[in-house]
Amino acid sequence: MTSPTWVVNAEAGLLEKVVYSPDGLVAAIAQDAESGEVLMMAWMSAEALALTLQTGRATYYSRSRQELWRKGDTSGNIQHVVSARADCDGDTLLLAVHQKGPACHTGARSCFDAGGHHD
Amino acid sequence: MTSPTWVVNAEAGLLEKVVYSPDGLVAAIAQDAESGEVLMMAWMSAEALALTLQTGRATYYSRSRQELWRKGDTSGNIQHVVSARADCDGDTLLLAVHQKGPACHTGARSCFDAGGHHD
Repeated sequence: MTSPTWVVNAEAGLLEKVVYSPDGLVAAIAQDAESGEVLMMAWMSAEALALTLQTGRATYYSRSRQELWRKGDTSGNIQHVVSARADCDGDTLLLAVHQKGPACHTGARSCFDAGGHHD
Repeated sequence: MTSPTWVVNAEAGLLEKVVYSPDGLVAAIAQDAESGEVLMMAWMSAEALALTLQTGRATYYSRSRQELWRKGDTSGNIQHVVSARADCDGDTLLLAVHQKGPACHTGARSCFDAGGHHD
């Protein structure tokens, strides 16, 4: 077994608790572990979740491209996952993450700060 | 025109920005306006979002019951929405809310604290 580079503090029984949609996905909210800012929401397949927990690198499933994407592989803006837990009915995950650089492809820190709203 | 009981600070052009799923829904994350805690994720139809913005009371769409539900009507644990904004691709909403009592039907403050995870 190789040494893990990161350990995700996953809720006990998380993998059994998750309820996937008919298309095999679960919503995942990424929240900044330090500031509490909500950075983004994306989707995970069972494989994406397993990879996320094994590697500590947030890995999602792209519904448009129909493939896994490990956040930061293209942009360098990687997400290390500190903890992961599911909600009461298991169909949404909440990840506490260390976000390197902006989380949004627009260059904004958060996908919810991509412009247009009042400040 | 009747007096509003609450004014939601909605992102400019929010209604035009939202991209609904093929079944007419958009994901909505409710975050505690004071603590930053993520309380729950639920779904909104266009009607639910319009009612939320008009009334300031978080109103969702139940996929299982296929009907609108205004949070707190049964439990008393209402959500007043302080602000609403969409993410970069318009398919997720982030609501800052004042949550009265627990947000979760289990009695937990957050649906992500409903039990079972490490502390």
